[in-house]
Amino acid sequence: MRLVVIGGVAAGTKAASRAKRTRPDLEVTVYQAEPEPSISECGLPYLLSGTVASREDLVSRTPERFAEKGVEVKVRHRVEELDAEGKTLAVRDLETGRLFEDRYDRLVISTGAKAILLPVPGANLEGVYPLRFLTDADRILSHAKVHQPRSALVVGGGYIGLEVAENLLARGLEVSLVEAADRVALSYGEEVAEKVGAHLEEKGVRLFTGISVEEFLPDGEGRVRAARLGDGRELEAGLVVAGVGVKPEVGLAQAAGVKLGQTGAIAVNRRLETNLPDVWAAGDCAESINLVTGEPAWHPLGDTANQMGRVAGTNAVLSEGGDDEALEFPGTLGTGVFKVFDLAVGKTGLSERAAREAGLDAVTVGLEAPSRAGYYPGGEPVFLKLIAERGTGRLLGAESVGAVDGGSADKQIDVSATALWGRLTVGDLVNLDLAYAPPFGPALSPVIQAATVLSGKV
Amino acid sequence: MRLVVIGGVAAGTKAASRAKRTRPDLEVTVYQAEPEPSISECGLPYLLSGTVASREDLVSRTPERFAEKGVEVKVRHRVEELDAEGKTLAVRDLETGRLFEDRYDRLVISTGAKAILLPVPGANLEGVYPLRFLTDADRILSHAKVHQPRSALVVGGGYIGLEVAENLLARGLEVSLVEAADRVALSYGEEVAEKVGAHLEEKGVRLFTGISVEEFLPDGEGRVRAARLGDGRELEAGLVVAGVGVKPEVGLAQAAGVKLGQTGAIAVNRRLETNLPDVWAAGDCAESINLVTGEPAWHPLGDTANQMGRVAGTNAVLSEGGDDEALEFPGTLGTGVFKVFDLAVGKTGLSERAAREAGLDAVTVGLEAPSRAGYYPGGEPVFLKLIAERGTGRLLGAESVGAVDGGSADKQIDVSATALWGRLTVGDLVNLDLAYAPPFGPALSPVIQAATVLSGKV
Repeated sequence: MRLVVIGGVAAGTKAASRAKRTRPDLEVTVYQAEPEPSISECGLPYLLSGTVASREDLVSRTPERFAEKGVEVKVRHRVEELDAEGKTLAVRDLETGRLFEDRYDRLVISTGAKAILLPVPGANLEGVYPLRFLTDADRILSHAKVHQPRSALVVGGGYIGLEVAENLLARGLEVSLVEAADRVALSYGEEVAEKVGAHLEEKGVRLFTGISVEEFLPDGEGRVRAARLGDGRELEAGLVVAGVGVKPEVGLAQAAGVKLGQTGAIAVNRRLETNLPDVWAAGDCAESINLVTGEPAWHPLGDTANQMGRVAGTNAVLSEGGDDEALEFPGTLGTGVFKVFDLAVGKTGLSERAAREAGLDAVTVGLEAPSRAGYYPGGEPVFLKLIAERGTGRLLGAESVGAVDGGSADKQIDVSATALWGRLTVGDLVNLDLAYAPPFGPALSPVIQAATVLSGKV
Repeated sequence: MRLVVIGGVAAGTKAASRAKRTRPDLEVTVYQAEPEPSISECGLPYLLSGTVASREDLVSRTPERFAEKGVEVKVRHRVEELDAEGKTLAVRDLETGRLFEDRYDRLVISTGAKAILLPVPGANLEGVYPLRFLTDADRILSHAKVHQPRSALVVGGGYIGLEVAENLLARGLEVSLVEAADRVALSYGEEVAEKVGAHLEEKGVRLFTGISVEEFLPDGEGRVRAARLGDGRELEAGLVVAGVGVKPEVGLAQAAGVKLGQTGAIAVNRRLETNLPDVWAAGDCAESINLVTGEPAWHPLGDTANQMGRVAGTNAVLSEGGDDEALEFPGTLGTGVFKVFDLAVGKTGLSERAAREAGLDAVTVGLEAPSRAGYYPGGEPVFLKLIAERGTGRLLGAESVGAVDGGSADKQIDVSATALWGRLTVGDLVNLDLAYAPPFGPALSPVIQAATVLSGKV
């Protein structure tokens, strides 16, 4: 049996490895357009500051390492056409330009997501880059070294933009951040967004919200020198990193007749099968189900991609009639966390606004608790907001902010995410038996405290 | 309506406060034999080193503060008899010695737990103390100041003994620890116990396991000077802290006809009602249900006591026919965490041995993972063991050890505890959507990694 995997980052390499382990006689090839496979994309912002010292640190496995396990990974190879009926692929070797045909018995599509480019004049100037691939980081670092810009502009106040702002500032640049919406961290509620915005300014990031970049302006040599905002102001910037979002990379699949879902990503069932026979999809290119709403969702994150890759890789090599061994990927909660300077910021499930948009009657409570017993030294405040459904008391979501060191926002979010997975109610959370000792939290965890307040409101 | 609460630490003060808030016209009195109410007993070890600077820091609310909320707290008052039929109490004012009668309409028993004393000669020598109440800490500190012992002996390798050993060493004493069982941290599996034992020795605690103290030996002035072990060896010790365990304080209740459960603590139903009308019990004196086995359990911990107090306090003041508003306390998981020097050690649910003893067919996996992405600086290894039921795949328990700073053992345990509460299987955990970013963990959380390995074994 021959398995081909298109795309070799988190989902693709996981699917290939898992398939080979499941079925040692398998012939498996991964095609990856970028020069490295298995890149830890979440680490890219930290290359910009040197927090992660070397780009090689972000390549968790080389093609040689995959080869040792019997998995062929062909980098700098782009699949340009897919014939799902004939089960063939047209593949371009990007080194030589040669186009050749390959065939498969089973196929996993894990083409990932691509950066949304800014649709404004000057967005293709030298010095204006997205940060999606390791090669983007290479270009940013090379530009910074060669041209030594004094100031940088980050466009987009989502988690990537925020991480990039921190890391460019740590590099010694003056950093401005422009976000078209009225606040950064838009997928969070206002309480969290305000804390993040205030922290950015405190750390020295110039923050512009509620305004767009209209144009990038060149210097005399075709490199970016400034951005013009919607109100006419010019912001000097010898380097621009645009983190305005990503979208699923589905062109190849769509052209081959693979059905997309309502989010624009590839539609799959719980086994991660697409509408085409013998074709699975996993990772950032694939849709999943939001487990809180039951509706299709798209959460392009590395850990989820890894989990989906395991399911797709296993299922793709099942024998006929091997249904009993099929794995299922039930869905996602939209859980995430990021660090911005000294703050850890995380969420899971629905924000208050997302709950309302899903037609749910949401009740919320936000509170600040210490991350250790009040009398134990070194505690840091942690803010937690819980969102629950009126009437049923079902937990719908959580958001948290606290200090990276000594705070516990990531813990609050992981507890809440696990509670969402188990469909717990605030009544459950009130009595939840969590681990307490003075160095690790207040006697009643912030989750329990918040649930106790909420239990009087639902 | 008059509510009397016997015992004013975590469960008692919570029950009283909650009852008063629920029913503002309530008359409520708490009797507390110790000189302070509302003591954070979990903080006591940290008084010994000065990590917590002042004993007042551990009194979260004074009687005056309770009085402001309409809750009468009478300290240094011991309830000596309970007539549940006549609904009267005989109360001793420990200051004056006077005995008087009180009456109640509703009663909450929250008499807590008491230290088990060592049944060996010399256990009542000056310089040999348990550590259960704030007054015990006072005695230990006073003895240490006045007599300046050079060396201390801790008896018992449970979490209190371990915390005490750390804090006495931090105070500058030479510390030995004797544990009769073959290892410390006995409620944990061997992997964890070995890590803790090695860490103790690395930090300079002299560790004696598998051997008992036979006798304490006096100096010429009636103070302890040494302990004689089972093999005849003498250990010099000018101060002994015995942390060999606690047992429920149920004498008063039992004499009044309150039924005990099979653990020896007071039997209660989910509403925390005892067998006697209008009598509830909560906190360390009361039994609960182990939610993993469904069997009676006794988990005397401050956070659980607090949660039980809320339930008992609410239910104790319900009007006739107010059943709809009754709260329930479903049970406990035996979750706990403690710090010993640089290690955080936690568990939830059943250990491998406890699972076997409960007649469950347990499958386990233990692994070490980094607490941050491998390429992100500052990560510390965290060990996690998951225990699951063969066949069903249901999670039964978890144990974890990691660095206090930068580790994440407490997070692994809280996620596992929440999963136990939701009765999740390892199949659920494999796909769990937890919060990932490089500064907060590896791409797949240790819980997910361990569950993935386990899913191939159950």
